[in-house]
Amino acid sequence: MSNAPYDDAFFKKNRKHTLKRVEEARKLFDKTKTFHYPTWLYGDFIGKPVTIEVEDCPRFGDTAYVELDSARTAFLSIDMQKDFCGRHGYVDVMGYDLHPTQSALKPIKNALEMVRKTDMSVIHTREGHTPDLSDAPFNKILRSKIIGDGVGIGDTPPGGMGKLLVRGEANWDIHEDVYPIPGEYIIDKAGKGAFGSSTIHMLLKNLGVTHLILSGITTDVCVQTIMREANDYGYWCILMKDGTGATDEENHASAIKSIKMQGGVFGNVTDSKRLIKALEKAFNKQ
Amino acid sequence: MSNAPYDDAFFKKNRKHTLKRVEEARKLFDKTKTFHYPTWLYGDFIGKPVTIEVEDCPRFGDTAYVELDSARTAFLSIDMQKDFCGRHGYVDVMGYDLHPTQSALKPIKNALEMVRKTDMSVIHTREGHTPDLSDAPFNKILRSKIIGDGVGIGDTPPGGMGKLLVRGEANWDIHEDVYPIPGEYIIDKAGKGAFGSSTIHMLLKNLGVTHLILSGITTDVCVQTIMREANDYGYWCILMKDGTGATDEENHASAIKSIKMQGGVFGNVTDSKRLIKALEKAFNKQ
Amino acid sequence: MSNAPYDDAFFKKNRKHTLKRVEEARKLFDKTKTFHYPTWLYGDFIGKPVTIEVEDCPRFGDTAYVELDSARTAFLSIDMQKDFCGRHGYVDVMGYDLHPTQSALKPIKNALEMVRKTDMSVIHTREGHTPDLSDAPFNKILRSKIIGDGVGIGDTPPGGMGKLLVRGEANWDIHEDVYPIPGEYIIDKAGKGAFGSSTIHMLLKNLGVTHLILSGITTDVCVQTIMREANDYGYWCILMKDGTGATDEENHASAIKSIKMQGGVFGNVTDSKRLIKALEKAFNKQ
Amino acid sequence: MSNAPYDDAFFKKNRKHTLKRVEEARKLFDKTKTFHYPTWLYGDFIGKPVTIEVEDCPRFGDTAYVELDSARTAFLSIDMQKDFCGRHGYVDVMGYDLHPTQSALKPIKNALEMVRKTDMSVIHTREGHTPDLSDAPFNKILRSKIIGDGVGIGDTPPGGMGKLLVRGEANWDIHEDVYPIPGEYIIDKAGKGAFGSSTIHMLLKNLGVTHLILSGITTDVCVQTIMREANDYGYWCILMKDGTGATDEENHASAIKSIKMQGGVFGNVTDSKRLIKALEKAFNKQ
Repeated sequence: MSNAPYDDAFFKKNRKHTLKRVEEARKLFDKTKTFHYPTWLYGDFIGKPVTIEVEDCPRFGDTAYVELDSARTAFLSIDMQKDFCGRHGYVDVMGYDLHPTQSALKPIKNALEMVRKTDMSVIHTREGHTPDLSDAPFNKILRSKIIGDGVGIGDTPPGGMGKLLVRGEANWDIHEDVYPIPGEYIIDKAGKGAFGSSTIHMLLKNLGVTHLILSGITTDVCVQTIMREANDYGYWCILMKDGTGATDEENHASAIKSIKMQGGVFGNVTDSKRLIKALEKAFNKQ
Repeated sequence: MSNAPYDDAFFKKNRKHTLKRVEEARKLFDKTKTFHYPTWLYGDFIGKPVTIEVEDCPRFGDTAYVELDSARTAFLSIDMQKDFCGRHGYVDVMGYDLHPTQSALKPIKNALEMVRKTDMSVIHTREGHTPDLSDAPFNKILRSKIIGDGVGIGDTPPGGMGKLLVRGEANWDIHEDVYPIPGEYIIDKAGKGAFGSSTIHMLLKNLGVTHLILSGITTDVCVQTIMREANDYGYWCILMKDGTGATDEENHASAIKSIKMQGGVFGNVTDSKRLIKALEKAFNKQ
Repeated sequence: MSNAPYDDAFFKKNRKHTLKRVEEARKLFDKTKTFHYPTWLYGDFIGKPVTIEVEDCPRFGDTAYVELDSARTAFLSIDMQKDFCGRHGYVDVMGYDLHPTQSALKPIKNALEMVRKTDMSVIHTREGHTPDLSDAPFNKILRSKIIGDGVGIGDTPPGGMGKLLVRGEANWDIHEDVYPIPGEYIIDKAGKGAFGSSTIHMLLKNLGVTHLILSGITTDVCVQTIMREANDYGYWCILMKDGTGATDEENHASAIKSIKMQGGVFGNVTDSKRLIKALEKAFNKQ
Repeated sequence: MSNAPYDDAFFKKNRKHTLKRVEEARKLFDKTKTFHYPTWLYGDFIGKPVTIEVEDCPRFGDTAYVELDSARTAFLSIDMQKDFCGRHGYVDVMGYDLHPTQSALKPIKNALEMVRKTDMSVIHTREGHTPDLSDAPFNKILRSKIIGDGVGIGDTPPGGMGKLLVRGEANWDIHEDVYPIPGEYIIDKAGKGAFGSSTIHMLLKNLGVTHLILSGITTDVCVQTIMREANDYGYWCILMKDGTGATDEENHASAIKSIKMQGGVFGNVTDSKRLIKALEKAFNKQ
């Protein structure tokens, strides 16, 4: 089969050019342990340079840093809805302990307090379906009904605040501790991920975002799905691990660990203290 | 804000209709422990009805069954490339033990032997980049170079067969034990997932696929990313767990476990023996 | 470059199989002038077979027919919002005559009257942005402001009902003559097209839709963009031409003509009379 | 329905902020007739500022200018394949005159000559299907076979160079007059558009592209489909009109005209002379 111009003579020029850029960044990383903000690709800083410490990078036990442009970074608070961390919400009805998901509230609240003093964007996501359930696959509703013994997506559980995972219901809304304020953004999505079922890709492009700090619940489901999608598209992703939580402790731990494999296969991991410290250094001490 | 017609009077009719369908399916599940093929949605069977046993569904310790239409089911063999399970391939260069990923070969080979006697579709995926690396995000290449001490995506390692994760290289191709044969399909993708960086959604639509059996490597990275994407779009997904493997045992176990949370948040889990048994029953008239 | 298995020996089997199917359908078309519903791909009919006459197919001057499954067909009423056909709406503010877009109202109303007696799905789309304009590209807002002499997307024009193209405003809502009724679906989209900025792909999949009848405004912008997207994904698209309209008569005519090039490069074209006639035949006369 | 926080108090802050930016840009446009490069969004220039004259903007008869960053602009040469402008190719077999599509060759060749002296990216797209036709919808193949009297996608026509619209065939490759050279990029796509069936969105993101200059064939089909998609995602699109062509003169003219409606509903229009003049001015220090 003639598959011209898939001969290497054609491709070599661009590959060499790219690998040269990468090699420069790698050598710099070896010296500084920092993923510097690539201004050659994104243009010069618009906001402030912020350097965040990340853990177990490139290998377990190591410490590294990610430099970002505050004006082109979004802090994501993923699905901090009462359905996932509140009484009579979706996760509660399914019989899971709420403490692990509720434990994300305080670190996110603390991080938001600092982030709101900067020019970083804040994006809140909500999983939920239109009240006709037309954007929910049949098997998703069915599985929830079976595990909920007849009470699933679209039903109001006994003592509940409204229909589970349905847009506009009180249980679907965001927990008051980390509630959005004017100037922040909301993305309503129909899936565990966001890129296939919302306009998050348009929002990120409209805001010029290059880096994402991810927090929210649950670690192994919605948070990691969004992180995988964003990572595949080339966004620099950093998980704020204490601002996450899951319905199962092992899955929570593994969701964090798997990010760090292969030098950061889905991005990097930090925590709220290190994030706040980095932002304070960039914004307060100048 | 007038948000008409987002009043419930408008949405109630379709929601009731859908929840009635779901409730019927749930009651049937209670009796038969089976997710029956929804012919009301997909039309009558084109191939043979196949009923596969799945584990820990809806709760850990339970057994359930998924009924599918063989002619509208695809068996996915994900990234069984030498780069992920062969000597001097990507995973090997990064310093991981190859036994866990290689352990997926035998079960997939066994499953393929049976699947090839049926009218199910077989789809092989390959992760890889064009030789100019233009479809690889800068941070992906950089991270691989750092963890590989200077040898990453696009480089040929000492003793290697070609450039790591580059299309057309020997290391990028599929392991001979599970190599595609005429009549099967190949999807080349640039990401861990497939739906955002390939034409897999067109292929599945052109084939009329409703159900997916997933196998391949690595469990927690590419396999689970594709499973999450497909599940979000409403495909019925079943992981064939013995035909998977990962670079870390805990992450492998958790990737399987997290699928089963919430009654099957990403689908269901079976193994090659149960798959083969189900296909034999359907096709060999036992 | 080794690009195995991209040799033709591998691909030939599936290509031959597909071309045999196609050749059978072509021979049948030669006899019946009908694109028959491919039950070999979609399964047997769920609703009623409906055979609609389409024009200028395969060549200008010809007449052909498309057979569809009523239960797997969606009637699309695209962007019939006051912003595009009402006083002080977006199109009016930009200085265009409203008669061409208003002319779509009657044919759609007539078609809906008949469609609502069947099991076809009805989907209404609305173009609009969240009130923070975060899903509107900067250049889109800017261009509207320039052509509107300072009044564009997000502004309330003198005498206007609300902010132009903003969700929740009276001008953004659907014209009362073709207003959705319970049992129908609504898709809110941020772009001219729908597949990249809404959950329409999930809705169509959840409904099992294979065929689309498209109507709405404007012919050359939103209607044709959605038709192009859907056609690329393999949906069978039929434009109901009298239920469309544009801001320019030539562009309207060409938008219809270009669909018919190359034997139907974007699908087929019919009108409300032929649609109603086909539905009456299928549903009333049995 | 409680749809909090969709109250305007929440959204007003960001809307006001955005509309202020837009109003500033509009006032500047009124003075300079120029869409200035938004460095507040994209960061400072990486390459050279280039100011291209565009026609009929914002109103027919007007002249305006678009300022772009050469290093973040891609020149697109769309589907300049022998299948669309060569003897015995797809368009020829369908019975269309080749002159209109061939007329695009010279202007693109001229433009490429200049563009290749700059740091702009050059991207060539090719429409085509894998040799098993698995990424071609059934109705697409069928329609081509009917209009081609039995010879369509996947068939080799009498006197032909290979299978029509199939990857790897001589007819599918790019015309020698505008053939890609090392340092340029190739996107293979299965649809008329590119964003839903290729990795073009990843390529554009990896290159940091904000502006697109579009050329190629055919004007009303592939070129305009890609322009619509890119415009919806917020890319700044400029059609180089003399470097385009179609199978029908009216459709060609309307495809260009419709872009200019509403102040530039799909972007702007220029020609090769104006593009070359702008690049010469920016790069040759005139």
